[in-house]
Parts: sequence; structure tokens; C-alpha cells
Amino acid sequence: MKIAVDDLKKFCKEILERNSVPIEEAEVIADSLVDANTIGVDSHGVTRLSLYLQRLKEATINSNTKMEILRETETTALYDANNGWGQYAGKIAMQEAVKKAKKYGTATIGVTNSNHFGTASYFTKMAAKENCIGIAMCNTTPIMVSWGSNEPTLGTNPLSIAIPTNRHPVVLDMATSNVARGKINLAAKDGEEIPTGWAITKEGKDTTDPHEALKGYLLPLGPKGSGLAMMIDIMSGVMTGALFGKDIPRMYDDKEPQRLGHLFMAIDPECFIEIETFKSRMDERIEQTVKSTPADGYEQVYMPGDIEEMNREKHEREGLTLSTALYEELRALGTKYDVSI
Amino acid sequence: MKIAVDDLKKFCKEILERNSVPIEEAEVIADSLVDANTIGVDSHGVTRLSLYLQRLKEATINSNTKMEILRETETTALYDANNGWGQYAGKIAMQEAVKKAKKYGTATIGVTNSNHFGTASYFTKMAAKENCIGIAMCNTTPIMVSWGSNEPTLGTNPLSIAIPTNRHPVVLDMATSNVARGKINLAAKDGEEIPTGWAITKEGKDTTDPHEALKGYLLPLGPKGSGLAMMIDIMSGVMTGALFGKDIPRMYDDKEPQRLGHLFMAIDPECFIEIETFKSRMDERIEQTVKSTPADGYEQVYMPGDIEEMNREKHEREGLTLSTALYEELRALGTKYDVSI
Repeated sequence: MKIAVDDLKKFCKEILERNSVPIEEAEVIADSLVDANTIGVDSHGVTRLSLYLQRLKEATINSNTKMEILRETETTALYDANNGWGQYAGKIAMQEAVKKAKKYGTATIGVTNSNHFGTASYFTKMAAKENCIGIAMCNTTPIMVSWGSNEPTLGTNPLSIAIPTNRHPVVLDMATSNVARGKINLAAKDGEEIPTGWAITKEGKDTTDPHEALKGYLLPLGPKGSGLAMMIDIMSGVMTGALFGKDIPRMYDDKEPQRLGHLFMAIDPECFIEIETFKSRMDERIEQTVKSTPADGYEQVYMPGDIEEMNREKHEREGLTLSTALYEELRALGTKYDVSI
Repeated sequence: MKIAVDDLKKFCKEILERNSVPIEEAEVIADSLVDANTIGVDSHGVTRLSLYLQRLKEATINSNTKMEILRETETTALYDANNGWGQYAGKIAMQEAVKKAKKYGTATIGVTNSNHFGTASYFTKMAAKENCIGIAMCNTTPIMVSWGSNEPTLGTNPLSIAIPTNRHPVVLDMATSNVARGKINLAAKDGEEIPTGWAITKEGKDTTDPHEALKGYLLPLGPKGSGLAMMIDIMSGVMTGALFGKDIPRMYDDKEPQRLGHLFMAIDPECFIEIETFKSRMDERIEQTVKSTPADGYEQVYMPGDIEEMNREKHEREGLTLSTALYEELRALGTKYDVSI
């Protein structure tokens, strides 16, 4: 099924509105979900909509996000999202980070008592659009082990950094696991083995069986990924007063608020160098990379975020392709809430 | 050869002083070098001393570091290190980051026109000692390829983050390459093969021959390590006006200033949560990890920085062990500059 990007956004927004989500929040959530599909990150896209509605129904998430400032200085703030929407909380927080960075140079904003915020790059791209460097991170459900451990005390805690340029921003958005759980799901569906190093069984043994892996835990991107996940848990969870580590409930199984934490940072490059000079130096940095000789098996060397941007251009031109299963799921939601897709 | 930590520091400091390095700078450089040995990171330890002296002799580095502020706001500053010592420049910059963070909440300090700054954790630990979260990064000699490229346009650009706790700080200090070049050196010395994925030949081919690898380029820690290295190059190099990417001269081979860039950030957790609460939550975070069941082949799960701290305790108690080759090298320097070891 093909659907235009804007049509899918409108559909998601209306479904959320019918579920008591305020219009300006529904707009951000729909925009973030469909943005994920548009850049090719389907795992964070509209496939999450029914889960969000389920959590609304269980009352494990609030339909509106009362953002409350708990602490504030010139360059920092801590928001309580009151168990509202991570996407909306993140947008407010990153806007504030950019505002403070534009005034004072740099800013760090924490959010506590929040929920799944979608893709981290959704927020860092907002900062880059304002000519700031944006950094975003979040702690998440503990489905990953620390390096050398058999027990899951870490999420796949993502980190995103985006850089303004003369073209689309340079965007890093990485989980700290070796591979995304979605890849293991795919192997399970396709009846294929997975390499060791992706996951362990519930008993802590190496496995090549995707089904055992899905019952078990993800492995981090080596000791470095493990360390990075820990630092993200500390900065977005321990420091903001949110839940952290193994205490975070699972979004799919546990019927209680996740109380996640996020951290957003913005740096105004103008405090270091004229923005035009920065961007022309970025042109050079990009050229060094994309004009370098590709390795065997590669046709072109890309900057972080280039492939996602190519996906966006394609999908905005040609529309998004939904699997039959996803389309049927959305259509059923549409029937239930009287919204046509 | 065994030598007490303080004796080795004193030796390095005196050698540097005899080479026209001002006393307060010699102290920082000696402290940073020996700190690296003390925590077990010998690659960044006193083995670098003769290289530093060689660069002094070639006049590719200045013996004293005239730190000049080029730009400044409440929460940012850009220093020109005037081709002086990275360790000293880093110390000044991180002190300033902490000072500004204590006043305004968070700070970001850049350094341009600098040199090798030793271990990045040397600076982040300084911040943690002051109850701040410290972040440090640096761009370095391009000996690594971007993901999917055959040409080296990236350094192994390190990132360190340190967190204050009730015990020693939690410290991440990671290069963005898959493995350190030192591991390949070791394999070459021991006549052993290396796994593919560590490095490629100068022609861009996979190799298990450490000698070919040493003539070639390091591979990044997957696409994520590549992306992170790029972001570090941008934030510490492109943004500070330093050299970046493939334009950075090699420290060992090229007879010209490296003009590296560093970036230091400090966050005062007190702006988010009482420091005592933060630290007792850190106790919990640490306990979750170190009390978790170890994986097969591991006796204990550690927090980032624990092993380095165990090394420090051991070396401060028992002294450092220098290889015969390194001891002879240092003794020869001692004879040359009339400093006894």
C-alpha cells in the first residue's frame, strides 16, 4: 500500500485527537512517527501508533503533557513531563535548549517522568535547523546487558547529534546495542540464524537462534557501547530524577508508567566561529568524505544522515509503502475511531 | 624495572624543564603521562616522552603554551593554544568549563591550534573531582577510514565522560576505532595474526597481517564508531577553527604543527538534583551493575573506569613496571639531560 507522507501524518494526528490528545501534541507525535518512516526508520514509525493507544487505554500514559519546570538556571532546566508524551516533551525541551544556547552559548535541558520519545534525531534536527548543534539522549527499557554481565540493566539508550550545514544537516542517531532488536525480529520472521554477538539467551548463553535471542537480551556495541549506554542512563536518568537501569518498566509488557528521562543539549557554533565560515568548513569536511574512494562493496561514501535524507526525498516524492499487515492495522484503527486513511 | 609513581613523575617533569618547558606546564604533562601508566593505558604514558622532545627539537611544538582567548560568552570560550601543549591547554580549558558550569549550569570550551593532549579522561576526571560531569573530545591524526571508505579522513577521535560519585568517578574513555593501534603493534611483535575488521591495507583490502595493517588504516567501531568520530572531528576541529579530517599532519612522521582541536564540556548536576541525592542514586546505579551476574568467562561486572582505578591502586602501592626497552630509553634521556631516574 502506498500512501502520501502528509496523508499518513493527518491520519495519525486525527486518531490521536480522537483519543483525547490535544491538537498541538497530536501534531508533534504524528510528525515524529511519520518522520521516522519517511527517513526509513520504520521501527520508530506508525507501527507504534496502536501501542501508544493501548497505553492510553491502560492509563499508563497521560493523554496530555503538562510540562512543569522543576529547576532552572540561565543555561539549564529540568522539566517534569508528568507522564505525558516524550515527543512533545522533547520538542519543548529542545526548543528551550536552543533558546538558551542562542542567548548564553550552550545549554543542557533534562526531562524526567516521560515516555518513549520516538527517534532522537527528530529533536537534534530541530536544533540544526536553528543553526545550533543539537545533542539528544534517552534511557529506555532494560533489554541489554552491561559488558561482561548476564543481567539486563541497560536499555539500548540512543544518542543523536546533528550539525547544521549548507545542505541537510549531518545527523548521527545510534542505539548503543550491537544491532537493533528489529534485525533479530526480521531474522525470526525469515527463519534465518543470527550471528553470535547480537544477543544472548535468557540464561545468558550465546545464541544464533533469533527466537531464543528475542526471549533473551541484546548485547551492547562492545565495551564501548556498554559504557556509552551507561553514561546516557546516568545523564538522562540518574541526574534527572527519572527511573534508571533495571527499574524501568517495559513499554510492551508492563502496565505502569515508564518514567523515562531525556537529556537535550544545544551549542551555538557562532560562539566559536562565524556561522558562514563554519558551514563552508563543513562543505570541506563533507567533500573529504563523499569524494573519498569507496571500499569494496560500496558505491559511494556517505556522511551520517545522508541515506536517511535520500529516503526522505524518495518518500516525499513517491509516497510511503506500508506492509499489508500494517495497513490493515491502521485501517482497523481508522474504522474504530472513524478516521479514513 | 619497578619505579614509584611519584619518582617517574618527577623524572618526566625535570626532563621537560631541561627542555625549556615552564615548570607549571611540565608538571601537568608529567602528571598526565604518568597517570596514563598508572591506570594501565601505557600507550599514552611515558613512552611518549621522547616523541614530545623530538617535536620540541624540530620546533613543531612550542615549549610554552600561550593560552589566548579568541571568543568568550557566559558559557563558552574558544582558546588558541598557540601550538603549545595539549595537556596544559586542556587543563586550563576544563578548569574554565567547570568554573562557568558552577556559575551558569553548563559550559562548552573549545581549544584550537593545539597538540596531542594525552588521555581524554585526564580532564574529565578533573571535572568529576569538582562534582561536575565532564566531557572531553579531540580530533587526531587521520589513520582511520570512514565507514564504507578506503581513504583515511578520520582520526581515532576519543571521547571521555566522567561522573562524580561517592567513590571514584565513573569514567568512560573510548577511541572510536574498533581496536587501538597498540593492539596491532602487539600482534606484530608477537608474530600473531589479527582478526579481520581491525584494519585494512594501504590498498584498502581486508588483512589479518599486522604488518600490512600497520602500513594501512584502522577500521572504525562499525558505522556508529565512524559517525561518532565524524561528530568529534566536527565539534573539536571544524567548529574551533583547527585542522580537521585528512588535513591533520601525523604526529610521528610529519614535521609540522598538528593544529588539533579539543572540546570540553561541563555540566553541574546540582542544577538538576541535589548532589547528595545524585550520588546516592549513583550508588544504586553502580550496585545494579557490579552485583549483576557475570557472563561466562567473567568473574565480576565492572563500571566504566573500575579496572583503571584498580590499576591505579596497585601501581601506587607497588610501583610501575617499565619494560627494559622503555627503561633504557628513559635512562638515555636522563643521561642526556642530566636527570637521574
